[in-house]
Amino acid sequence: MGTLRDSERTRGKLIEAAGHLFAEKGFNGVTVRDIAKAANASLSSLNYHFRTKEALYHEALMDACQADSVPDKDKAALLKLDPKEALFILAKEALKEYRKQTTSNWRTALITRECREPSHEFKAVSEKHLTPETHFLAEIIGRAANKPATDYHVRFAVITLISLLETFGLYRHLIDEVSPGLDDFFKPKDGLAQHIVHLVLEAARNDTAT
Amino acid sequence: MGTLRDSERTRGKLIEAAGHLFAEKGFNGVTVRDIAKAANASLSSLNYHFRTKEALYHEALMDACQADSVPDKDKAALLKLDPKEALFILAKEALKEYRKQTTSNWRTALITRECREPSHEFKAVSEKHLTPETHFLAEIIGRAANKPATDYHVRFAVITLISLLETFGLYRHLIDEVSPGLDDFFKPKDGLAQHIVHLVLEAARNDTAT
Repeated sequence: MGTLRDSERTRGKLIEAAGHLFAEKGFNGVTVRDIAKAANASLSSLNYHFRTKEALYHEALMDACQADSVPDKDKAALLKLDPKEALFILAKEALKEYRKQTTSNWRTALITRECREPSHEFKAVSEKHLTPETHFLAEIIGRAANKPATDYHVRFAVITLISLLETFGLYRHLIDEVSPGLDDFFKPKDGLAQHIVHLVLEAARNDTAT
Repeated sequence: MGTLRDSERTRGKLIEAAGHLFAEKGFNGVTVRDIAKAANASLSSLNYHFRTKEALYHEALMDACQADSVPDKDKAALLKLDPKEALFILAKEALKEYRKQTTSNWRTALITRECREPSHEFKAVSEKHLTPETHFLAEIIGRAANKPATDYHVRFAVITLISLLETFGLYRHLIDEVSPGLDDFFKPKDGLAQHIVHLVLEAARNDTAT
């Protein structure tokens, strides 16, 4: 008997399966048949919930963005703190979140793929997720560096922050391979987050080269 | 009539097609039949040159590493310069190289995929490419910061350098989207490379947080 809850569950399973497959093989490398099969669902229920592969891709991507963003209530709380402290908390939490992820986390992989090779959905991702997120980070970093959020050095610092958090958070096995022991060295006193914040503020402040 | 040169050309076309497909869909998402078809070659010539899909993956990956590495003679020349100057040249050239790449460049995409989700080939990539490359960068950064190449802050700075070059070099459309105008702002006097070098040296020097 199909209840509303069953239907929601099927919808969730389809998004989950689609996200995995799209992250692994890209939009063109996946068919709706593959997705239905991986979700253990019928093609007709896939059609009922999403109609097209495009619609399903859109939903999976937006689901990934949602999970990867700082929730609005956390943003409001962070904006009330001393900006340097807020930045440190942000960095620490982001590193912790990334490190919880296994390599099979399709959400980050799908967003990364989209940032690297934009699809027809890139504009939607950017409006919904990337632009508000970078504005928020620019706000905090700007306050910490006593510059407006629109300042180019602040903007440079925002991208520096994202870049370092992703690299040190997501590419751990790579770092362990090329610099064994680095992770343990930075573990006490959240040294890695502290170093990243230090660099980000330096990026926002430094005007010497331009 | 099959000449030696034809045979080499077919081999090259197979690596190229395989690289594209592996970068897009991953090792498991591709069959030897897909590769032969994309290369406009026969399955028997694929078997002749590579025998297994694993062997072809290995060759494509090593080809990608070769193209992405600093050549040994350039390394020797850079080690003769003032280390800060060498670092600046390295950063400038890497940004230029990355920016020449289109998103369809399979070489970087394949290496990134391998760093993110290591396959059975990761050890080989790491030995052949990643470890020597990071040792070389640690040598230069260590000299510029007056620290041994083995110092953990120098190691942190190496990963900071790689992270920033990749982000600012490869994710241009993303940066244009979230920070329009940033690229033009940093263009004069190679400002982007200068800022990256400044941060990398700061990363190597800063001992405050640990």
